[in-house]
Amino acid sequence: MKPKSADILIVNGTILTMDANQTPLINGGIAIARDRIAAIGPAAEFSDWRAPRVIDAGGGIIMPGLINTHTHAAMTCFRGLADDLQLMTWLNEHIFPAEAKLDEQKVYSGALLACAEMIMSGTTCFCDMYLFEDAVARAACDAGMRAVVGEVLYDFDSPNYGPIAKGFEYTRKMIDTWQEHPLVSIAVEPHSTYLCAPGLLQKAFDLARDYSLPLVIHLAESKSEVAQVKERFDRTPVEHLAQLGLLAPNVVACHCVELTENDIALLKRFDVKVAHNAESNMKLASGVAPVPRLLDEGICVGLGTDGCASNNNLDLFLEMDTVAKIHKAKTLDPTVMDAQTVLKMATIMSAQALGLESFIGSLETGKKADLIIVDTAQPHLTPMYNPVSHMVYAARGSDVTTVIINGTVVMEDYQLKTIDLRSVIDDVNQIAKEIAAA
Amino acid sequence: MKPKSADILIVNGTILTMDANQTPLINGGIAIARDRIAAIGPAAEFSDWRAPRVIDAGGGIIMPGLINTHTHAAMTCFRGLADDLQLMTWLNEHIFPAEAKLDEQKVYSGALLACAEMIMSGTTCFCDMYLFEDAVARAACDAGMRAVVGEVLYDFDSPNYGPIAKGFEYTRKMIDTWQEHPLVSIAVEPHSTYLCAPGLLQKAFDLARDYSLPLVIHLAESKSEVAQVKERFDRTPVEHLAQLGLLAPNVVACHCVELTENDIALLKRFDVKVAHNAESNMKLASGVAPVPRLLDEGICVGLGTDGCASNNNLDLFLEMDTVAKIHKAKTLDPTVMDAQTVLKMATIMSAQALGLESFIGSLETGKKADLIIVDTAQPHLTPMYNPVSHMVYAARGSDVTTVIINGTVVMEDYQLKTIDLRSVIDDVNQIAKEIAAA
Repeated sequence: MKPKSADILIVNGTILTMDANQTPLINGGIAIARDRIAAIGPAAEFSDWRAPRVIDAGGGIIMPGLINTHTHAAMTCFRGLADDLQLMTWLNEHIFPAEAKLDEQKVYSGALLACAEMIMSGTTCFCDMYLFEDAVARAACDAGMRAVVGEVLYDFDSPNYGPIAKGFEYTRKMIDTWQEHPLVSIAVEPHSTYLCAPGLLQKAFDLARDYSLPLVIHLAESKSEVAQVKERFDRTPVEHLAQLGLLAPNVVACHCVELTENDIALLKRFDVKVAHNAESNMKLASGVAPVPRLLDEGICVGLGTDGCASNNNLDLFLEMDTVAKIHKAKTLDPTVMDAQTVLKMATIMSAQALGLESFIGSLETGKKADLIIVDTAQPHLTPMYNPVSHMVYAARGSDVTTVIINGTVVMEDYQLKTIDLRSVIDDVNQIAKEIAAA
Repeated sequence: MKPKSADILIVNGTILTMDANQTPLINGGIAIARDRIAAIGPAAEFSDWRAPRVIDAGGGIIMPGLINTHTHAAMTCFRGLADDLQLMTWLNEHIFPAEAKLDEQKVYSGALLACAEMIMSGTTCFCDMYLFEDAVARAACDAGMRAVVGEVLYDFDSPNYGPIAKGFEYTRKMIDTWQEHPLVSIAVEPHSTYLCAPGLLQKAFDLARDYSLPLVIHLAESKSEVAQVKERFDRTPVEHLAQLGLLAPNVVACHCVELTENDIALLKRFDVKVAHNAESNMKLASGVAPVPRLLDEGICVGLGTDGCASNNNLDLFLEMDTVAKIHKAKTLDPTVMDAQTVLKMATIMSAQALGLESFIGSLETGKKADLIIVDTAQPHLTPMYNPVSHMVYAARGSDVTTVIINGTVVMEDYQLKTIDLRSVIDDVNQIAKEIAAA
């Protein structure tokens, strides 16, 4: 029998496939050909496969790369710049003045640092909203990361594109530039219902629909946002979008902390996707989103870290741990948000939130090869009764040894292959000096 | 001028002393002679110091080792054994049957694994409550860790000592055995007001008073505990201890989630210390302790991880992050539990909770040399505007490179010096096999 050939074989690990049949595959193997998973199954099935590169998972865990459904990557530049402040003090006295100093080069450096941090902590895909977003797309591309990126759109002038008409132009140009890219895709990203007039929202929605793109928006993040929108429109933010006819399956609603029963019914009815950012919501004292309720209703909820200024890291392993625990504390029910559910949220449900579930989010034959290997031979992951529990409750991003995105090894044995770490750290330290000096 | 001599010099780092004057010492130095800090100050002051061993902190952060005020170290054996269950199902169907299989050797191995995990994540001292506690003391001693240990006492027979009278004998013997030890000290540890009759509590209190030891007790951990105690004694657990005359400055009350205003007043009046275990309280759905209130009242609150079965790791860096965030989400006030306060809780306040503040918890001349070095030249700690913010909101235990306890280097460049990691991991994996097979 002729051996089957692949580019990469991965052997000697427990595979968490995150497919519909969620039983861990003890001692499994994976064959990768070009950018895709050519085969996955018990190790015994791989005796007749050959590949120029064989990666030994060392008895660790092989699982889909984590997917960050909401972040502002370049805000790494502001990590720890200001904490523990009232929201308006934080924004007006620290974040907005710092953001006014940004340019394309700084955003590129900040985003590249974010990519390094994300890859090193097991994230293989992120959805980003920020200024100078084309630089974020380039950083993701240079890092070899999968990314859904969109320029933030709002009523006032932007430090990047100026007036909003130019913002739409900028977005269209990005759609054009990146349309055939294997890693980067574009989203339309109006900031929120309180910073975007109905006309802007309508236009953004039309653009997203015309090109079949995700529409990413901050929605119902805090009590003050809801109060503001109610004051102006006599409706909740969710009702406001519904009234404008702008709720749809391609909408990624970030945060959704403050929801009424009617809001939840609307999100369900229109199959809106939710990006849950537990740690950011806690740090900014926005509260705790009613995620167990949303999941009970069958609403798709993915996980996000939000930006580094409100977290202050991009480690989705730590985020999973928090997500599994915070809802138990809020509901006083220890059975909600079990480990398996949370791991699904960070993988296949996040993929679904971004409309990418046919390509990523689980390890299945034919899907893109976006996967990570976790070293479990460590004190804090010993013993191992249940690998899913460990990934959610005990692991840290620093346990990830190897990362493959789109069939390319971007980290192996803790060594990044695509990014000059020393150089990007120096660049962002220099940016921070300028920000701190001002 | 004759050079001053030390055993170890540490140079080239930012020092967070955690002393009363809490300004970070950029480019500081520390001289260690035998088990103590002989000098600490700006690098320039160390030009005339000589030592056979010089440790370069590589521009990282030098700070006091973290102090875990409440854990059950040997429960590493049950890490991830059962999660996401109702408390009584979890205890009766999983934890209690597993604990019935423990013996001294298993507790030693589990505790040694815990020591490895704690040292590797920057913890230098822990306060432990469990069965076969002399084995925990030996594990700490062999690991070179500082520990306050106490055999758990309750009304029913113990798998270790049998009837309660023997439990007091066992405790007295431990007091005797370890009285002169430089690292290990003993506490008296009645389990709780619901598992200990008033007579047992009184006797434990007397013993602790006679030997000037801490008295460690679970207190007001959950609504069901409070309901149980109220039903039996018509008082809250805190009121019950007060009524028995058992509240005092040496009492370490673990959890304190469910407190009335009167309870808080009592804790304050008697200067009781509180061990806050945010992640465990979240995971077991006990709720969120009113820590900002306790701190406002001037009550000393230290941090703990609780056991691995309810966390599921012993990483106090992750615990700090959660503690800083959970109270913001609960109070909807982003200014509570600022980073500096949380770092104090994990260091000097935890030392104070255990009655060890003259020896550990801050880096000051004359104190014991218990300190850690954190590598900050990493993507997730870049840039660094504020080292305190980074230690609380961005760092992970895996960022700790070097650990010194009582003047001895127990980890350097991520390498444990005191524990054979391979061997203890094998031992606990074997124990887990036996537990899972039953």
